[in-house]
Amino acid sequence: MVNMDTIVSLCKRRGFIFQSSEIYGGTGSCWDYGPLGVELKGNVKRLWWRDNVQHRPDMVGLDASILMHAAVWKASGHLDHFTDPMVDCKACQRRFRADKLDEEAWIHYCPATKGNKFVVPGGEPCKHCSARRALCPVCGKGELTEARQFNLMFKTFMGPVEDDAAVTYLRPETAQGIFVNFDNVLQSMRLKLPFGIAQVGKAFRNEITPGNFTFRTREFEQMEIEYFVMPGDDEDWHQRWIDERFAWYQRCGIRKENIRLREHEKDELAHYAKRCVDIEYLFPMGWSELEGIANRTDYDLKQHSQFSGKTLDYFDEETKERVVPYVIEPSAGADRSALAFLIDAYYQEEVRGEKRVVLKFHPELAPIKIAVLPLLKKNSQIVETAKKICADLRKRWHSVYDDTAAIGRLYRRQDEIGTPFCVTVDVQTVGDGKSLADEKVTIRDRDTMQQIRVPISSLGPAMADLMAGKWAEVAAQGLYQNVASENHKS
Amino acid sequence: MVNMDTIVSLCKRRGFIFQSSEIYGGTGSCWDYGPLGVELKGNVKRLWWRDNVQHRPDMVGLDASILMHAAVWKASGHLDHFTDPMVDCKACQRRFRADKLDEEAWIHYCPATKGNKFVVPGGEPCKHCSARRALCPVCGKGELTEARQFNLMFKTFMGPVEDDAAVTYLRPETAQGIFVNFDNVLQSMRLKLPFGIAQVGKAFRNEITPGNFTFRTREFEQMEIEYFVMPGDDEDWHQRWIDERFAWYQRCGIRKENIRLREHEKDELAHYAKRCVDIEYLFPMGWSELEGIANRTDYDLKQHSQFSGKTLDYFDEETKERVVPYVIEPSAGADRSALAFLIDAYYQEEVRGEKRVVLKFHPELAPIKIAVLPLLKKNSQIVETAKKICADLRKRWHSVYDDTAAIGRLYRRQDEIGTPFCVTVDVQTVGDGKSLADEKVTIRDRDTMQQIRVPISSLGPAMADLMAGKWAEVAAQGLYQNVASENHKS
Repeated sequence: MVNMDTIVSLCKRRGFIFQSSEIYGGTGSCWDYGPLGVELKGNVKRLWWRDNVQHRPDMVGLDASILMHAAVWKASGHLDHFTDPMVDCKACQRRFRADKLDEEAWIHYCPATKGNKFVVPGGEPCKHCSARRALCPVCGKGELTEARQFNLMFKTFMGPVEDDAAVTYLRPETAQGIFVNFDNVLQSMRLKLPFGIAQVGKAFRNEITPGNFTFRTREFEQMEIEYFVMPGDDEDWHQRWIDERFAWYQRCGIRKENIRLREHEKDELAHYAKRCVDIEYLFPMGWSELEGIANRTDYDLKQHSQFSGKTLDYFDEETKERVVPYVIEPSAGADRSALAFLIDAYYQEEVRGEKRVVLKFHPELAPIKIAVLPLLKKNSQIVETAKKICADLRKRWHSVYDDTAAIGRLYRRQDEIGTPFCVTVDVQTVGDGKSLADEKVTIRDRDTMQQIRVPISSLGPAMADLMAGKWAEVAAQGLYQNVASENHKS
Repeated sequence: MVNMDTIVSLCKRRGFIFQSSEIYGGTGSCWDYGPLGVELKGNVKRLWWRDNVQHRPDMVGLDASILMHAAVWKASGHLDHFTDPMVDCKACQRRFRADKLDEEAWIHYCPATKGNKFVVPGGEPCKHCSARRALCPVCGKGELTEARQFNLMFKTFMGPVEDDAAVTYLRPETAQGIFVNFDNVLQSMRLKLPFGIAQVGKAFRNEITPGNFTFRTREFEQMEIEYFVMPGDDEDWHQRWIDERFAWYQRCGIRKENIRLREHEKDELAHYAKRCVDIEYLFPMGWSELEGIANRTDYDLKQHSQFSGKTLDYFDEETKERVVPYVIEPSAGADRSALAFLIDAYYQEEVRGEKRVVLKFHPELAPIKIAVLPLLKKNSQIVETAKKICADLRKRWHSVYDDTAAIGRLYRRQDEIGTPFCVTVDVQTVGDGKSLADEKVTIRDRDTMQQIRVPISSLGPAMADLMAGKWAEVAAQGLYQNVASENHKS
């Protein structure tokens, strides 16, 4: 398993993810997606939308605003209950989540060993003096304050006056934007149960202890579905969504040994939830939540109905009765999904005695689909042909042209950013004094490093087949000439 | 020209745009995109990205966070200068932008007509007593306070303590996220001048007087490019970007009589701008800015360099000198672009004595591309065939099935949401006791209402041609049978 530092470093060096406001010393737990990162995360969101909205007859989309009426957060319970217990060290002023303290290692100046300093694993007593942690886990000197409840919503002021009437919050989840629009969506789209409303968008939580790169951040993007069903059908639909979402990550390339389901215990269920199952991914810091799939019952619609005074229900034409639907919520994080896809794609291999780092992204997720590379930068015919081919391919696939190094180095660069296919233009392609142009190019596969030679005129259809995973079929057709793997010397 | 109320009403009724938090009385100037609106706006952003990033060899993307280090806004000048002058009415407490007061109509209790109440156009004197406005334009009674400067940035607090050190702001523009990442992007992507960095994302401005539906809102989405060039090349590149962006809106379907360029006067230029040209659209409230294209010189990079202490420049390999690039900024609004496309697509026509409302979207922008409609809902063979066809088409194009009304009504519904093509399945398609199935369906064009009959087996390629605007070619091929326009009786 790759460690997180390697991923963070690759992400910065190759333009996936930068620290926000880095030139000013950085912002706590916000990250900026660079040129490759914005394509990767964009592809994650696009695939999610395609598979969950476009391809389903029972789903519609929504894009609610981040700033909502403060009453929404009263009704949803966030204003009163969306809090973490917080303690401060009286000596060093560091702040900790009281409910996570037991898990943290702590620094201990052990009296039994003349005040020597030890780092003691979370929850364990000191093995010399048997003391348990009484002081700050970081400085080991200060007492901790009593726990206070700290609301995780970012507060701001709407309109030109900073008074209580104008206080509002950055949404801590996108879900509530769906619930408050339930009736507008239902009426305008003439929907029948069961149906879902899907949304992708930013949410904000003022986490006390964010961390693990883009896994837990104060600003993040969610991909949420609220799927409304008849009460009584909820348990069945819940299971169907758990199965579907678990399969989705694997269809998009996550290795099955790195993903699992975890059933929430009764005592960790949110007060509105009848059942909740997490999809967990084996991140470098351990198994962690990628997506939660909860049965939220009719709690949210009833709350908003009560607080707003508006009826939020559904008229069942069969029974001629009004019912409040139950809701199944598959709630995924776009940032942590992108991170999981990146980590899962990471391989370090040895190729002819040299290290090769390669991101084996599913082609649909790869930031760049094709790199067009000239074998000789000094040959202007090769360069012009390569640029022309790149311009053509770019109309359909995100493609780049690169001539800033020798071919072996160029391949490694594309491997490291996960480009599925390289197209190389060489002397044979354009001809020289000795032989005529064969007007063919070499296509190289990222994962196998196999190469085939294809006429420029059939590059479009060949690429379409290769993107669809048909390398073997294409190579077997005998239409194209197989070329020895990595035959270009750098 | 359609009026704004008609558009607002259509948007709510058909699921394009709802007022945010409507069930709680709404939020000042925030809007939620419904199922059709999220597709429309998504298509606008996707086309912009495709044409400005994917199709250009000289452009890369970025997605910076909304919450940035507060120092960014000091360096950019927003903290000190991003203000509007504000006055209050001492009687009714309403608040106005002092610099816009002259443009507003005002209520006047004219003493020359025994205190009768008149609404007087902005800037005009009362025609009875010649008085000019001295009091509040809305209540006509209160004096106005002196103007005070009001900063338009939304303030919030990062981290768990509300103190000055943790104050930060929701970004009022996406541009600064690009400038502070300039060096990270340059290095990681090995870029050569000229090159651009493109970004789509939310920005927030605490406008004193938002309005005109989604035209001016407190939360909005920008599509911005910062295009870096050698000093000296800036004027030429500025003009190229003005021409390109002006052409883009027209390629996407905006009628040329509804769009124009407006050169900024010297005295309205921002202090950093050498030249600025707006692309304006003829909205219902008059010509208004759709996009601004400014030559920002080297102002931003120099400011951030000075405030952060980090060098932000470019090494020119030809002259072996370091230069600070100039920047051309085409800055568009995703919301107001979507609104302009919607307004521009709106037509009200008379078809055989009946009113027809139709949104003539460019097919790339239409929220739904194809509607599959059964002519007879009671014929289960027709229904099943139509559902099957819809499921097939949906894999490639956003398609819907609808059987909740008679065919004439279904066509009108699709016209009103701008679906380019309807596919109808009828008795001929599936056959009956008298005649065999012909396994053909009718395709109807939204704008001309012409129809052709196409074998189900060639529906895919036919649709691809039709989406590319080749109706005449397809119909002329004689492959498909022309059918009388709207021959189905409802």
